[in-house]
Amino acid sequence: MAAKTWPDSLAGMDLDEFLHRAEDLHGHLSPGVVAGAFMVDRASREHVPGEYLNAVVETVVCLPDAVQILTPCSLGNGFMQVLDWGKFAITLYDRMTLRGVRAWLDPAAVKGNQIVAGWYLRPPDAGKVDKEVVIRELFSCGRELVKSAPVKLGAALKSTEKVPTGLCPVCGESYPLRQGPSCLACQGQGYYRL
Amino acid sequence: MAAKTWPDSLAGMDLDEFLHRAEDLHGHLSPGVVAGAFMVDRASREHVPGEYLNAVVETVVCLPDAVQILTPCSLGNGFMQVLDWGKFAITLYDRMTLRGVRAWLDPAAVKGNQIVAGWYLRPPDAGKVDKEVVIRELFSCGRELVKSAPVKLGAALKSTEKVPTGLCPVCGESYPLRQGPSCLACQGQGYYRL
Repeated sequence: MAAKTWPDSLAGMDLDEFLHRAEDLHGHLSPGVVAGAFMVDRASREHVPGEYLNAVVETVVCLPDAVQILTPCSLGNGFMQVLDWGKFAITLYDRMTLRGVRAWLDPAAVKGNQIVAGWYLRPPDAGKVDKEVVIRELFSCGRELVKSAPVKLGAALKSTEKVPTGLCPVCGESYPLRQGPSCLACQGQGYYRL
Repeated sequence: MAAKTWPDSLAGMDLDEFLHRAEDLHGHLSPGVVAGAFMVDRASREHVPGEYLNAVVETVVCLPDAVQILTPCSLGNGFMQVLDWGKFAITLYDRMTLRGVRAWLDPAAVKGNQIVAGWYLRPPDAGKVDKEVVIRELFSCGRELVKSAPVKLGAALKSTEKVPTGLCPVCGESYPLRQGPSCLACQGQGYYRL
């Protein structure tokens, strides 16, 4: 399946296994998930993942799935934090030492690769992007397009406080009491109507 | 593995497959993931999932992983939206018709189940919760503890707009231009230092 220059594995996961899991979780293979996989791979190489591995993802698009596939961190287990910053970058860190490695897709390197640049930098003159071609190119040279730097966090991003909860007097459901006398939906912030 | 009264499948997924995937994504089986699975199961039964299935999860804790395991919706593919509301509820809906079903763990029903109540309602006199026991109890009677209602959304929660991006003049990375003259990290909101 993989061409000669593709890596056999990413972040310690066999490439076929990665492709299979990407299909399962993400539904299809996207350039963002593949680029994310190379970021996780890079950060993993420079930061030996220990017992206390946490992740930060700086965009909601694609990258969270790469992290969820390739690390033990998920949104639901709280070890992956997601910032809606619109930046194609991730950090893996140790929540005890707060030390880790941030990895990102480097625009300077991407600029030299016409195929990836057409997708990532969205030049005004770029025609329709063929994502299959971008994915193949990323598998071939993703390692050259990712940069990384050691970082230290100011604090662990996973909250460990116990949040006091109670029943909303309007809908009767459980909610965090700090939000006020009723839950956010009953305060008018609901995204739905019955 | 499953006791007599446990369901054979949840939301169309074989129970053993669900247990296996929960281990993979979440790292372990938690009461929240199991409760979430029963919510997805309930919402799936009442809302035949079509081509345009989207999900809303009303807490960052545990439930997002149940949705990611049992539906085609993930955080990274954009079909699962997550609200940090602290409510144990999910909605599955069709992004074309905006109609769907919301399902939640019903405190009134949970109250009658001492084991699940000790975990979910956190009564002040509850001792240490044995999560294994809670999980077993949820598998046995999760269906009785989940309520649901048909809902209609005001708008699809997945954003489809193309966000103009450019290079941050400070760090050189790509970022959404609407955030200002530099990226959020370079505006001082970074969670890390080099």
